[in-house]
Amino acid sequence: MKQRDQDTLLSGLGTLTRGNVIPGAEADSYLQEWRRLWPGQCLAVVRPGSTEEAADIVRFCQEHALPVVPQGGNTGLVGGQSPQDERSVVISLERMKRIGPVNAQAATLYTQAGATLSEVQEAAREVGMLFPVSMASEGSAQVGGAISTNAGGISVLAYGTMRERVLGLEVVLPDGRIWNGQRALRKDNTGYDLKQMFMGAEGTLGLITGAVLRLAPAPKDRVTLWLAVETAEDAVSLFHRLSGACGPALTSFELISAAALDLAFRHNSALRAPVGARTEYHVLAEISIFETIPAEDLAMAALGPALENGTVADAALATSGGQRAAMWALREALPEAQAAPRAQIKHDVTLPVAAIPEFLLRAGQAVETCMPGIRPVPFGHLGDGNLHYNLLAPEGMDTEAFAPHTSRICQAVYDIVQTMDGSISAEHGIGRLKRELLAMTKSDVELSLMRTLKHSLDPKGIMNPGILLDPKSMDRFETGVNTAGR
Amino acid sequence: MKQRDQDTLLSGLGTLTRGNVIPGAEADSYLQEWRRLWPGQCLAVVRPGSTEEAADIVRFCQEHALPVVPQGGNTGLVGGQSPQDERSVVISLERMKRIGPVNAQAATLYTQAGATLSEVQEAAREVGMLFPVSMASEGSAQVGGAISTNAGGISVLAYGTMRERVLGLEVVLPDGRIWNGQRALRKDNTGYDLKQMFMGAEGTLGLITGAVLRLAPAPKDRVTLWLAVETAEDAVSLFHRLSGACGPALTSFELISAAALDLAFRHNSALRAPVGARTEYHVLAEISIFETIPAEDLAMAALGPALENGTVADAALATSGGQRAAMWALREALPEAQAAPRAQIKHDVTLPVAAIPEFLLRAGQAVETCMPGIRPVPFGHLGDGNLHYNLLAPEGMDTEAFAPHTSRICQAVYDIVQTMDGSISAEHGIGRLKRELLAMTKSDVELSLMRTLKHSLDPKGIMNPGILLDPKSMDRFETGVNTAGR
Repeated sequence: MKQRDQDTLLSGLGTLTRGNVIPGAEADSYLQEWRRLWPGQCLAVVRPGSTEEAADIVRFCQEHALPVVPQGGNTGLVGGQSPQDERSVVISLERMKRIGPVNAQAATLYTQAGATLSEVQEAAREVGMLFPVSMASEGSAQVGGAISTNAGGISVLAYGTMRERVLGLEVVLPDGRIWNGQRALRKDNTGYDLKQMFMGAEGTLGLITGAVLRLAPAPKDRVTLWLAVETAEDAVSLFHRLSGACGPALTSFELISAAALDLAFRHNSALRAPVGARTEYHVLAEISIFETIPAEDLAMAALGPALENGTVADAALATSGGQRAAMWALREALPEAQAAPRAQIKHDVTLPVAAIPEFLLRAGQAVETCMPGIRPVPFGHLGDGNLHYNLLAPEGMDTEAFAPHTSRICQAVYDIVQTMDGSISAEHGIGRLKRELLAMTKSDVELSLMRTLKHSLDPKGIMNPGILLDPKSMDRFETGVNTAGR
Repeated sequence: MKQRDQDTLLSGLGTLTRGNVIPGAEADSYLQEWRRLWPGQCLAVVRPGSTEEAADIVRFCQEHALPVVPQGGNTGLVGGQSPQDERSVVISLERMKRIGPVNAQAATLYTQAGATLSEVQEAAREVGMLFPVSMASEGSAQVGGAISTNAGGISVLAYGTMRERVLGLEVVLPDGRIWNGQRALRKDNTGYDLKQMFMGAEGTLGLITGAVLRLAPAPKDRVTLWLAVETAEDAVSLFHRLSGACGPALTSFELISAAALDLAFRHNSALRAPVGARTEYHVLAEISIFETIPAEDLAMAALGPALENGTVADAALATSGGQRAAMWALREALPEAQAAPRAQIKHDVTLPVAAIPEFLLRAGQAVETCMPGIRPVPFGHLGDGNLHYNLLAPEGMDTEAFAPHTSRICQAVYDIVQTMDGSISAEHGIGRLKRELLAMTKSDVELSLMRTLKHSLDPKGIMNPGILLDPKSMDRFETGVNTAGR
């Protein structure tokens, strides 16, 4: 792009946002994500202060055929937030963080899309309520990004994914119009539920600028359990036992392999195992109760038989805040530890819960066949059937030697997922990373429906081009940005 | 339509469905709904035996520009299932009732769209699970209709509307292609969540032929409470008390006005009040628990203060199946009793729960001003903020005298709903009844988004034309059926 064009565009954007424009050359922190996998480039990062400013920017981009890349906390794992085109305009809502009104009786919370999940959780806590969507990145992840990716986390089991916590949305459409769908009602059957289109769309259909979130009553008492089990089958049977005995009071059920745990210990020597037993798997579960009985009593009643018959080899119960925090800190250390070694592969798959032991077995054999010595370090949200089936290169193999084999290894894993009726992306989304995979695993009818939806809302293809859908597949539509041949 | 054209089309349809074609002239039971408000007409009712047959029929209709009217159990309250065009083809899936596989461990149930809600509930019960969507019409209402209208009912509070119970869908698209989106996964972030578009779309975007439903664990113990309260404010404060004390264990919270109850008693002399106190309002609540304590103990602990301070004037607790059934039968008698007198108006509105007493007061004054002596008989799902604010004509006034005033009275109610940020349709949908109202209450941006979605999926406008969106508003698109000028 010519310098003069660039200057003209930057000055136009600057007019729209009262100086909150960072030229691409100075925007490194927005162009690098934390694992540095998708170094980006862009014309500018703009930081609107209001929905109207955001709408003006999108309209400007529409008029100048500039790709728009909405970016939240830049914590995504599939590259959906990383601009690749030098003409991209990254829109960051980090200045739009206003939360409120928060209504405890109505269990509703209004927020601008730039607030972080932690900030929303805190605002709910202040009125004695719970905002349950929780994950390791919650201190940085923003509401807009979490909705756009339909984020999951550690409480989906009882409280659902982000989609299930959204009552209303405000969205800037690709043509710059503002759709105010910020309703705060539990039931509203008045025509198509438009907000559903934008959730999980990874910024390709519009820019989410505000939301009304649904809070939950804060539980009266909580107990966090760390349970050592010998096999994945034991973990599954324990899940069914606890789920049957506790119903909706079972709010988390996480599986952690010994391999993933060992890696975390090596990465951070301050971490301690809550139990002594050295089993192949561990379970981190949480029971949250509202009734006047202590959560610990329910936990003991539900666990009793599993402790007696040896399904659980060892158990630690945390009822105090500090103990609980330590257990969850250990869980949150897993992705961090796995980000450190570069020679690795991440997967985020869902399967029927009962199929997880078989999947672990089959995937383990398949990747070992692909590459003897490869080290699976699986963990995940077993209660949701969601496994982060991550793999480390064999001991001593570096990134350069490992990289040429990763696509073959991934394919072996995804083939098994497909055969077992699972999903190739449970909670991380498609982004740039899994775009070709999406095209390979979805039916023609489904891909065509997705393209129809994309084309009808964003005919020029300016919203996050190249994310989710392959731009080449959009060629049959007469689009602006996508067919510009750059 | 000429007799010869009609014969040709009927014979074409007959070829597609092996004789399961009922000519319009013989299809009276499909053309009348239970309140006989929208007498319909059609070319034929067709009853496909498989998804492929259904797809062939839709393709045939597409080719011949025949309007397609999907009809479930014909229990809808807004006329969405009533064909109005003599060339309409009504598709009934009543032969497509196969349920299964049902997987208790995975909490999933596959079903064809023609199964009734009762049949699905029974299939879940057989494996020890719960399918929680429940309403008075569940013996007739079919899965396809319940999904297309995003049905609500008496358990939304804890279990959500139909939308929240659907994991996957199979849909025949307007062009006759079949989209197989029957996935059974709790988490699946692989592109646009297409099933969301078809849910609540009232058959205007496609024909739902199958679904994967999400079951819930069956509670260990349940108690049903009938509580007499003096005012709507008392009912709201009782809701907040029970909701805070029971969390997700509070599975229903219904408000019933004495007026609605009296009408039910007059309509059916076999019904009995569970409590002696003659208060202005009654609450029917249910507590479902999973823990090992009896539900009755939790109920008494949660209710205690409200009984002592007089918020609750009288209470009856049912723990046996027979007692519970009697209480719910009384609740279900309300809509039936209100269907009998013809000089009446039904509303299905949502408001923030805490605003319901104010709404009752303001709406009561407004309708009394419109028509002195008019009799509100409100009841509804208070826990969801959803009120059926129904009105009977003044004593002695017949339908003919009342009818000319209904639109003015409705408008007065809807004006208050709008002012109080409520919804004009909580769970019944838009259908034909509220189509003009939708156009008046939604923003231009929202209506334009809905039309864009409709046009992109059904460019010829063959799917349930005239339902939800006003066909006149679609005129700017070059459509087939809608602009044919009939």
